[in-house]
Amino acid sequence: MSSNDRVIIFDTTLRDGEQSPGASMTKDEKLRIAKALERMKVDVIEAGFAIASPGDFDAVKTIADTIKDSTICSLSRALDADIERAGEALAGANSGRIHTFIATSPIHMEYKLRMQPDQVVEQAVRAVKKARNLCDDVEFSCEDAGRSELDFLCRIVEAAIDAGARTINIPDTVGYAIPHQYAELIRQLIERVPNSDKAIFSVHCHNDLGLAVANSLAAVVAGARQVECTINGLGERAGNAALEEIVMAIRTREDLLKVHTRIDTTQILSTSRMVSGITGFPVQPNKAIVGANAFAHESGIHQDGVLKHRETYEIMSAESVGWNANKMVLGKHSGRNAFRSRLQELGIELASESELNAAFARFKDLADKKHEIFDEDLQALVTDTQNEEVTEHYKLVSLEVASKTGEVPQAELVLLVDGEEVRASEQGSGPVDAAFKAIESVAQSGSTLQLYSVNAITQGTDSQGEVTVRLERAGRIVNGNGADTDIVVASVKAYLHALNLMQCGVARAHPQVGGI
Amino acid sequence: MSSNDRVIIFDTTLRDGEQSPGASMTKDEKLRIAKALERMKVDVIEAGFAIASPGDFDAVKTIADTIKDSTICSLSRALDADIERAGEALAGANSGRIHTFIATSPIHMEYKLRMQPDQVVEQAVRAVKKARNLCDDVEFSCEDAGRSELDFLCRIVEAAIDAGARTINIPDTVGYAIPHQYAELIRQLIERVPNSDKAIFSVHCHNDLGLAVANSLAAVVAGARQVECTINGLGERAGNAALEEIVMAIRTREDLLKVHTRIDTTQILSTSRMVSGITGFPVQPNKAIVGANAFAHESGIHQDGVLKHRETYEIMSAESVGWNANKMVLGKHSGRNAFRSRLQELGIELASESELNAAFARFKDLADKKHEIFDEDLQALVTDTQNEEVTEHYKLVSLEVASKTGEVPQAELVLLVDGEEVRASEQGSGPVDAAFKAIESVAQSGSTLQLYSVNAITQGTDSQGEVTVRLERAGRIVNGNGADTDIVVASVKAYLHALNLMQCGVARAHPQVGGI
Repeated sequence: MSSNDRVIIFDTTLRDGEQSPGASMTKDEKLRIAKALERMKVDVIEAGFAIASPGDFDAVKTIADTIKDSTICSLSRALDADIERAGEALAGANSGRIHTFIATSPIHMEYKLRMQPDQVVEQAVRAVKKARNLCDDVEFSCEDAGRSELDFLCRIVEAAIDAGARTINIPDTVGYAIPHQYAELIRQLIERVPNSDKAIFSVHCHNDLGLAVANSLAAVVAGARQVECTINGLGERAGNAALEEIVMAIRTREDLLKVHTRIDTTQILSTSRMVSGITGFPVQPNKAIVGANAFAHESGIHQDGVLKHRETYEIMSAESVGWNANKMVLGKHSGRNAFRSRLQELGIELASESELNAAFARFKDLADKKHEIFDEDLQALVTDTQNEEVTEHYKLVSLEVASKTGEVPQAELVLLVDGEEVRASEQGSGPVDAAFKAIESVAQSGSTLQLYSVNAITQGTDSQGEVTVRLERAGRIVNGNGADTDIVVASVKAYLHALNLMQCGVARAHPQVGGI
Repeated sequence: MSSNDRVIIFDTTLRDGEQSPGASMTKDEKLRIAKALERMKVDVIEAGFAIASPGDFDAVKTIADTIKDSTICSLSRALDADIERAGEALAGANSGRIHTFIATSPIHMEYKLRMQPDQVVEQAVRAVKKARNLCDDVEFSCEDAGRSELDFLCRIVEAAIDAGARTINIPDTVGYAIPHQYAELIRQLIERVPNSDKAIFSVHCHNDLGLAVANSLAAVVAGARQVECTINGLGERAGNAALEEIVMAIRTREDLLKVHTRIDTTQILSTSRMVSGITGFPVQPNKAIVGANAFAHESGIHQDGVLKHRETYEIMSAESVGWNANKMVLGKHSGRNAFRSRLQELGIELASESELNAAFARFKDLADKKHEIFDEDLQALVTDTQNEEVTEHYKLVSLEVASKTGEVPQAELVLLVDGEEVRASEQGSGPVDAAFKAIESVAQSGSTLQLYSVNAITQGTDSQGEVTVRLERAGRIVNGNGADTDIVVASVKAYLHALNLMQCGVARAHPQVGGI
């Protein structure tokens, strides 16, 4: 293994990540994340599961048509219809990949597929050949490989490579593997499959036992050269291997691992925040690399150590992953140019001048209420503006809440419903509850509130609150976001955003097709 | 290695966990967590760093005097005064341990200790002997062992065992290790140190690269028989190995790891929630074992698989770690006995009848506003009651807020300040900001708001909001918590709780003594 060996970083935030309950994203949100991943120099972006829904197809297609520097991939079962749909979505890609999978573990073949092993091999080969007719770059995954029999894995992998698969992925679908044993599996496969030199071996690990990153790295030491991962470790159940941890472990311990990636690590933090903001999934303070405390040193001895010699406690610099101490701060006297150039520095592109104008108007409004405007405030502002891409069936005109100890809180609000003014007034167990009830007295959406969370965007009492509201109706889940210095207003914005998403059909039903 | 080998679970949530910026806890909070750890059958509880502050000493002493089934440990540098203070704090323990440490890596010896290696060995031996005079059970740690030279480690470990250390801890202080290399270090140490059979080898891993759990397990395979870990992976920077992941990986993969623990895994979830609630550190939804999504299956194929055969996607049951589907729900007609017995089932002990009465009064009050009362509501209620153990310099009498689009939000409130009624009224950028400013117009605490977060405790719009407010003054950080169906009231409660903590001196200054 040469020290120049490169590990391909395959990001599946938009596919496996989106399969987390409650993490579904709109097409526009997915495109924003895809652009951030491209900026970060991710090699392959799995943009979705084209056959899962028209919304998924649309998202894969839009991303394939837009992103130029990363390969765009769509997942598909080993079925003709799936593969055709993936090929269609990827038609406009600069560099496209079809990723097809079938289960190979005895338990999955017996209970889920209800197929004999021979039939599974045959279907895999047919799928890979079909995919190769549509696309040069084909990846084949053995679902639940971690619990599959080695002889059978060798057989199906050899057949898939013969059929034209360039990448062979060995997922630990249920997060069951232990590093030394998983590394041995990869080593054996590469050794025993006669044509293994004709494909790149890939790993895709789930984090049910907290070992996704370690399993992936152990596999790299054993010869794997692609790692499938997600921003913030998002993904089904306990999630996937976190991209930021994989990349920084490889970078920090290149001495032992003898590989590198081409990721621009300085983009890690902003991308992590974007994904957290869009999904409403908080990043815990003690999360490696991107948690608020990851580079904070509390105890006196450690602080002293850091001052005396940086390396006594720091093995990588905060700056290398995009934390920077000197954030430029804007205020009420900042002009449109300063605003625009700061957005550019933050890597935020607005689609049009009118979007910029809308964002700038909100900025001036915010600057009236809040002394200093931080980068985080700008990001929230822009998210808020970009939310408007969703057709606004419901729009807030005005809001009045009163809350007094011993009395029942009351909210009165005026909404524009498809352009028409409607008044509503309700009581509730708190001002937010009263406002939500008032909205529902108009909307009668029949949805249930699954999650409500608020985070202050910056420090200080005049900080904006960023509210996430997750609504569910008939199995469909949407996340609405809203930011304002007034927490009740932010809550109402988030609730209306969620209702608009629900109304527009932008958010899709959960994919009914699964994954690896 | 026999399959009967037991791994000792050493929890350091109350010491290393508390060293996370913002995670400091009061003595009563520490005692509640210690009781939960004892219920969970944790072998060793590191209760604090006795010399760090009078508050730390007091917490270690109280826990040592109260907990009977777990060994109670205090950390101490390799200094006479530290060790004496630890011995004093542990005097009343049923089973006590002094844990002393010194740095052994070239970089730490040179830049932090400014000592020669010979001096370091000499000081370590003196410290272990001194500790053995006070306590039979002594643990010795080589700080930054992960970057120490193997020959030197062998030398100091042999000397420490000769001096009477029963446990030798090899921490990866900076989170720099990779599993196969760390396992090799442990294997070499056990092989090369002549008296290694007279001590138990322990590991303490930090999660900076996301590998703390994997490094710990690799070390166990290499012969380590104690793992130091924390609930939710709390700890300095990116935290420590998560207890719940270590324990469940060992339990799920006993076939490969050939060891077991004596942990009662059904206590994991409630303890995780308690720690999250007390510190105000959220657990991200995709956190292994204890995250909200850890046992949730989104995609259709997976749901289908789970229904067809549970093991197709589940490698452990949600029930085994304390998730249970059928939570008993209380309502406004529930009586005092039902309330009390539910608390007992949840493992919540109230110190006195008057505390129970206070909690029950809050329960009735809540039941008036909220249709169904869930376990989480009860936990929040009790936390709120137990908060009152802190002397209430500031107490809320009444609150009135009004917020109307286009007008500046206004808050008026009446506080009891040391028993005397004070009125305050302020404007702000939102109702919460106005209320906080009104409080500060009275308190003039000079503290800054570092963090403000809200989480709905259960689903539904009438859910209670649980607010965490983190205040900082002159380097001292306190977390206040408050719960209410009215988010503004919850915020005010949390802010006043934080001020009371600040005022009482219950929260200590950060320890100025460091750790491993």
